[in-house]
Amino acid sequence: MGEEKTTPTRVLVVGGTHGNERNGVALLRRWGQAPRTLRRSGLALELVPGNPAAIAAGRRYLERDLNRSFQPVLLNDPAAQELEVRRARELLATWGPGGSTPCAVALDLHSTTAAMGNSLVVYGRRPADLALAAGLQGRLGLPVYLHENDPTQRGYLVERWPCGLVIEVGPVPQGVENAAIGLQTQLALELALALLAEARSGTLRLPFQLEVHRHLRSLDVPRDSRGEARAMVHPRRQDRDWWPLEPGDPLFLSVDGTTLPWRPQPGDPDTVWPVFINEASYEEKGIAMSLTEREVWPVSGTWLAALNRLALSLEMETMEGQ
Amino acid sequence: MGEEKTTPTRVLVVGGTHGNERNGVALLRRWGQAPRTLRRSGLALELVPGNPAAIAAGRRYLERDLNRSFQPVLLNDPAAQELEVRRARELLATWGPGGSTPCAVALDLHSTTAAMGNSLVVYGRRPADLALAAGLQGRLGLPVYLHENDPTQRGYLVERWPCGLVIEVGPVPQGVENAAIGLQTQLALELALALLAEARSGTLRLPFQLEVHRHLRSLDVPRDSRGEARAMVHPRRQDRDWWPLEPGDPLFLSVDGTTLPWRPQPGDPDTVWPVFINEASYEEKGIAMSLTEREVWPVSGTWLAALNRLALSLEMETMEGQ
Repeated sequence: MGEEKTTPTRVLVVGGTHGNERNGVALLRRWGQAPRTLRRSGLALELVPGNPAAIAAGRRYLERDLNRSFQPVLLNDPAAQELEVRRARELLATWGPGGSTPCAVALDLHSTTAAMGNSLVVYGRRPADLALAAGLQGRLGLPVYLHENDPTQRGYLVERWPCGLVIEVGPVPQGVENAAIGLQTQLALELALALLAEARSGTLRLPFQLEVHRHLRSLDVPRDSRGEARAMVHPRRQDRDWWPLEPGDPLFLSVDGTTLPWRPQPGDPDTVWPVFINEASYEEKGIAMSLTEREVWPVSGTWLAALNRLALSLEMETMEGQ
Repeated sequence: MGEEKTTPTRVLVVGGTHGNERNGVALLRRWGQAPRTLRRSGLALELVPGNPAAIAAGRRYLERDLNRSFQPVLLNDPAAQELEVRRARELLATWGPGGSTPCAVALDLHSTTAAMGNSLVVYGRRPADLALAAGLQGRLGLPVYLHENDPTQRGYLVERWPCGLVIEVGPVPQGVENAAIGLQTQLALELALALLAEARSGTLRLPFQLEVHRHLRSLDVPRDSRGEARAMVHPRRQDRDWWPLEPGDPLFLSVDGTTLPWRPQPGDPDTVWPVFINEASYEEKGIAMSLTEREVWPVSGTWLAALNRLALSLEMETMEGQ
């Protein structure tokens, strides 16, 4: 059998997909100013600001959430001309897998006001994504939020690349550049690049298990008939992302000071693990937190094979780029 | 001597002067929904959203910072028609000391992304303000930031009322309603109202001393010739509001990882106490933190007399209002 001819690809690193999440943007800027401060693992990278107009305005987005704008039906609709839809098309035309500078992997740097720590978000169950997440979890212990089967939230950037995930770090206020949050982001990003380089050279080894927090559904705060909040996140639940929530545990605090405990609905598991608790930008989406179920999966050999195959196309950077 | 005839006045409580500082707004909303959850001390209150348009938009302001829009020269300039200037005029016309519902005291509820804790901001050295601040500090231990002599920052709301101060609580991200932050705000507000009621009845007693953190000047992060940040707040200074900063202490972290220590300029005291460290909304003002000097002042009898005199005009609320 002859060697397969593959188009060389690069790794796309995006910061500022949301314009008020500044630590990813700052990390890419620092990288540009002082390249030797980060370990690049030798892979050819494309460092790209996600939404430059929103970054300049210091806002999450201007017309619609860029990180919900990557649905094919929207991208293919000629009537959809919001700034963020046009930016999504531009990102794909330039750095998409079939773009002018094709990228096979997208790493999207986000931050959150929730106490998520240094964490990963994976969208669906693509083998190469799961391999990369397992590698990151095995070496840095990062928790993984597996987002799937959510009809109300779709169109994420990384879904349009063959492999990709979100590095999500918090808590940090919107608009704040925080050195510790930037360092956590940097650690996860550097390791992701190192793992991809290992996959490319066939030397990557993965742990036996991957622990995921699988998305179940999202909860809003209780509201009155006019949509006004009647309660807020309970102080004993605030900042407790990734901690188990059992029936009867305090969940919300009503305006009159009453504690509203967690009451599972039919079909809910006995224990759930909330994530993205009180994320500032999710209020407009009616999300006070998302509930997950913690599961431990065996790492499949097909995951590593998928990542290795994909990584074969990754270019090394030239001397000029170093 | 006959009794002096005074116009009855009320206490103005403002939340949401900045539309993305949600905890003050939420407190006033809860108060409306469940009046018995807060102690009102019997004084007639006006609970007013500062900038309703910015609150609806979830932004600090729409056209200009409302809390820098209360300069008389601006308010009297017919050419100044920004939304926030018009709102400032409206607030004064309705609840100003000479307004249709005159208020003698303004309490303005703010939050910050900086780790200020539960604190007070006093503008200048008006005796009644200092009396109220001394009372709050004596019973709750709140630190006081005395803002004065700052040519770059002026036009604060409370300056246009005979007595007023800012209750400033943090850290909390912009756009986040946090139960603990709301409770801290509530404690300071309830106590301020109780102290005003005591002043009205002539029973207020003040401590002997007031500790203030007097504004010296503000610092920006180091920037290059294009205005791009070359450093960020050092992780050992982040969240250290109200802590002393000595010469040589780590202050900023440059993009190449170098620690930039604090070097006083001629005229600076040996020790300074930074406040509002890394407040998200101050970046546009070129402020990474403000430096203060800690001073302990004896409480003057004239302060209490000024507050007592002013409080005599305060109305009690009617039964309907309770």
